[in-house]
Amino acid sequence: MELKIYTKKREEIIDLTSKIKDIIKKTKIKEGLCVIYVPHATAAVTINENYDPAVCEDFLEALKKIAPKGIWKHDKIDENGDAHIKAAIIGPSEVIPIKNSQILLGKWQGVMFCEFDGPRERRIIINVE
Amino acid sequence: MELKIYTKKREEIIDLTSKIKDIIKKTKIKEGLCVIYVPHATAAVTINENYDPAVCEDFLEALKKIAPKGIWKHDKIDENGDAHIKAAIIGPSEVIPIKNSQILLGKWQGVMFCEFDGPRERRIIINVE
Amino acid sequence: MELKIYTKKREEIIDLTSKIKDIIKKTKIKEGLCVIYVPHATAAVTINENYDPAVCEDFLEALKKIAPKGIWKHDKIDENGDAHIKAAIIGPSEVIPIKNSQILLGKWQGVMFCEFDGPRERRIIINVE
Repeated sequence: MELKIYTKKREEIIDLTSKIKDIIKKTKIKEGLCVIYVPHATAAVTINENYDPAVCEDFLEALKKIAPKGIWKHDKIDENGDAHIKAAIIGPSEVIPIKNSQILLGKWQGVMFCEFDGPRERRIIINVE
Repeated sequence: MELKIYTKKREEIIDLTSKIKDIIKKTKIKEGLCVIYVPHATAAVTINENYDPAVCEDFLEALKKIAPKGIWKHDKIDENGDAHIKAAIIGPSEVIPIKNSQILLGKWQGVMFCEFDGPRERRIIINVE
Repeated sequence: MELKIYTKKREEIIDLTSKIKDIIKKTKIKEGLCVIYVPHATAAVTINENYDPAVCEDFLEALKKIAPKGIWKHDKIDENGDAHIKAAIIGPSEVIPIKNSQILLGKWQGVMFCEFDGPRERRIIINVE
């Protein structure tokens, strides 16, 4: 299964949790694994609190200190060297167990798509098995 | 299967390797995958050397430079903004292949629970299939 | 299945994409998951662009700022404290869905082995199921 999303800013965190729960409900799977995979080299997926929006702003701010914009060799070609570094550190996938037809996210955990070089159309692959 | 642990400090690394090996032995699975999943937004799991304790101290020190305590927007609500950033960077899961009834950890690799906002009671989900 | 590689420098990124695609072709698997696992505590695997070599150089440079060489407690024993930190942050595994006998890497994504303490002989476990 695949989700398509349209990001609106250069950097943006988008909560995918409810969409993923809907997909798992439709598959009628009872036990197994849910893999969320982002097939892009300047985006990623992470798991974090989705209640206070400041958590995601802090996260983007911390990554900005690790990889500030505009100082990388790859910027000569694409101006998105920072986005590649952030994507590689956070990674393109998350793996979450499913039990009793439920994804085992903790109470404060949400699945968050990370845009590092938007705005763009992005795909998210959801593999349940 | 689920492990319950009680962390004792705000930041702490706890080696889960022997407990995970015991669980795999009990399942009698021969080939497959072991997924370790932490359902918390201020804790994580990583894989690292478990022989010299300085390796884990260095790891926590490096994360402290990435996300120092007390400078984040979320701190106004919870005083654990740094813990959320660390948890999102390290991630809540590890996936390790199983072969000949053995988890394929390297000689110097251990599965390490990372507490970033303790002391707390924490759960760790072990999925073997 | 297992790959063996010989790294040539202390820090080096090696593109494994074509080797992994060959392995998946040989298994004749149609749908499932490909897990790439590095059983070493001073190496890792990441996914990033593999077209412009500057992307990987930038990535190593950013990690060097997170964990500079020579300032860690573990250096007294092994002089590779920085390599352990980098390996734990990037992580030893990647999980990629397979569909229609194809690994679902994005157009600009490659599977990259990360050597942080070479030169060494290194193993990479490829689990397809």
